[in-house]
Amino acid sequence: MSQEKNTDEVFSATVTAPVNIAVIKYWGKRDTALNLPTNSSFSVTLSQDDLCTRTTASCSRSYAHDSLELNDAPCPLSARYLACLAELRALRRALEQADPTLPELAALPLRIASRNNFPTASGLASSASGFAALVRAVADLYALPASPTELSRIARVGSGSASRSLFGGYAGWARGQRADGADSEAYAAFPASHWPEMRMLVLVTRDRKKDVSSTAGMQVTVATSDLFWHRADKIVPERMRRMEEAVRDRDFAAFGALAMRDSNSFHALCLDSVPPIFYMDDASRAAVAVVGRINEAAGEVVAAYSFDAGPNAVIFYLHGNRNRVAGVFRSILGETPGWDGERGKKIEPSVLDINEGTVSTLQSRVKRVILTAVGEGPVSVEVKGPNGVAGSKH
Amino acid sequence: MSQEKNTDEVFSATVTAPVNIAVIKYWGKRDTALNLPTNSSFSVTLSQDDLCTRTTASCSRSYAHDSLELNDAPCPLSARYLACLAELRALRRALEQADPTLPELAALPLRIASRNNFPTASGLASSASGFAALVRAVADLYALPASPTELSRIARVGSGSASRSLFGGYAGWARGQRADGADSEAYAAFPASHWPEMRMLVLVTRDRKKDVSSTAGMQVTVATSDLFWHRADKIVPERMRRMEEAVRDRDFAAFGALAMRDSNSFHALCLDSVPPIFYMDDASRAAVAVVGRINEAAGEVVAAYSFDAGPNAVIFYLHGNRNRVAGVFRSILGETPGWDGERGKKIEPSVLDINEGTVSTLQSRVKRVILTAVGEGPVSVEVKGPNGVAGSKH
Repeated sequence: MSQEKNTDEVFSATVTAPVNIAVIKYWGKRDTALNLPTNSSFSVTLSQDDLCTRTTASCSRSYAHDSLELNDAPCPLSARYLACLAELRALRRALEQADPTLPELAALPLRIASRNNFPTASGLASSASGFAALVRAVADLYALPASPTELSRIARVGSGSASRSLFGGYAGWARGQRADGADSEAYAAFPASHWPEMRMLVLVTRDRKKDVSSTAGMQVTVATSDLFWHRADKIVPERMRRMEEAVRDRDFAAFGALAMRDSNSFHALCLDSVPPIFYMDDASRAAVAVVGRINEAAGEVVAAYSFDAGPNAVIFYLHGNRNRVAGVFRSILGETPGWDGERGKKIEPSVLDINEGTVSTLQSRVKRVILTAVGEGPVSVEVKGPNGVAGSKH
Repeated sequence: MSQEKNTDEVFSATVTAPVNIAVIKYWGKRDTALNLPTNSSFSVTLSQDDLCTRTTASCSRSYAHDSLELNDAPCPLSARYLACLAELRALRRALEQADPTLPELAALPLRIASRNNFPTASGLASSASGFAALVRAVADLYALPASPTELSRIARVGSGSASRSLFGGYAGWARGQRADGADSEAYAAFPASHWPEMRMLVLVTRDRKKDVSSTAGMQVTVATSDLFWHRADKIVPERMRRMEEAVRDRDFAAFGALAMRDSNSFHALCLDSVPPIFYMDDASRAAVAVVGRINEAAGEVVAAYSFDAGPNAVIFYLHGNRNRVAGVFRSILGETPGWDGERGKKIEPSVLDINEGTVSTLQSRVKRVILTAVGEGPVSVEVKGPNGVAGSKH
């Protein structure tokens, strides 16, 4: 190959990144441009075997301009994407300036192609895995020496909860104090291997009403709820400490009780907003009732629910309790799609005496179940650079 | 008639007392025996033309013991009834001791017969009108010179919200500071005549699930909600001031906005309880959505909802806005019973563009509407004493 520049040359990196479910919720921004939160949050990363975003970032002199494709459809690069790309380019440019032998990738147009392996209609936020994958893919493409924590600050500008999807296992995201956001970053609290038995059952409801987006909803809450700052300032800091202790000690009862409390207090703030925001509906309440019955029957907290900005329940349990938690839902929702994968094969239906109205609400409203587990952080799938110079597999 | 005691002689007094709907909610007791609240509250008294309890209190040497009959069924005298009767007897005894010519009624067995002119299934709390009627009937029977405020302290021990049903119009109930409850009493903030245009539409839902009773629910909230004391201590005092100003100024927009906020924050506390308490359901949320559309169409707050410890919406509006508020519900719920009375005749259906799911939820879940208005306090119907000595009509 000649030393002349090949204008058709394409450099690329492909990664996958996970979805996460917050158990101490992020709700409220102190800076909307930088996605700086009003309180710290904590999440469990979901296994990419079940749910992930796969993103290829590429750059080439042959591209006309920066572009984005989501699930095969061209998509405009909104300000949040542009902000992430600008930060990543600046880091690459600094590398190139320090080492003039590096190929000048920062100047090349970027092409981002992203695809979720789960339906958007699952009600699981794809923005977290999406921005985590984008940031990690471009960082791989640019061979940036940035740590996941540093990348989490960039992903955060794209979508707050994406900061936590840079990590596997059990991740925190610190509120931070600084106005520029330099200390508002995610961190690996515990790896998935610390507590690998964590499982999740997602109940995906049909007839999902048009929700208030979380971006819009949280700012309504900040602006109007009289209870908002009390949670953010007084309640969450203590809950963060206790949640990290619960995970550290692998204490499911403490983990579950805190997760349910914090989910409920988040939805309480939504209800306290003007106008009130309702994400939970009768199907959500039916899931809460079943979890209550499961725990009552067990005599301890073996199941815990959490709800994000929508009606779908995420139910946490440990693998050892799969039959008396997921099995109870299977006895109610055995006809509902989603039980037929590898994970479902291990779950035996288990019958509990459940209120008839609760059963019929779940049967008529849940359209699909998803079984998943705690999992790993982003994975570098492939890097194609000029003789491997542009990047390498992490 | 001889001066010998006629052992069959029956002294009696009959009163009616109203239901009230709190617009600043009572939720939480600082003393469960005395029903001392954790925060002040404020209510609108409902017209007895539509909803009331009618109670006859009688006493006679011929009665074997104290007894209670509710809606024609014998009912045990629980501790709350006994506490009210003991206080009233003590007041009568003091009168008799001061004036030995008075008949010795305090020593006679009492018979209380109480009946609601509205179905229990209406979801409207009958304990407020019930205890207000009981206390006022016995006070009439005993010819007690006690003011409604004094009687409100006695009724409060029976049922907290009963304290406010001793008054018509717009009534407050002060939290008070004293441990013995001597300063926790209701008061007439404004008479019904001050703002007689206030109207209420109650949407009574079918398939009412078994609720957590308000007595049990509020104590779960006090014990477990991390948001509870913030509302009680920090939020409600300011809301009480603003609510009294709104009624004073006959400012419906301010009244309605506050009523909706406070209803929502009360239900937020319920949701923040462990386990969470859900009183609002999908039918409640549909009512909230319609009120939102009505106000949006009006460009101002002309309708306001409030929910007590159950899913039934109470919707406030002014008589002048009856068509654009109640009329919108009539256009949706025209087939639902309850529109055919005197009040309904004045309401023309009014069509607004409402989400189809909201309409079908209301049509399938609302079984009855009740139209009512602000009204007067307890009414003394009849007193039958020895030559009128025992009491007189107030």
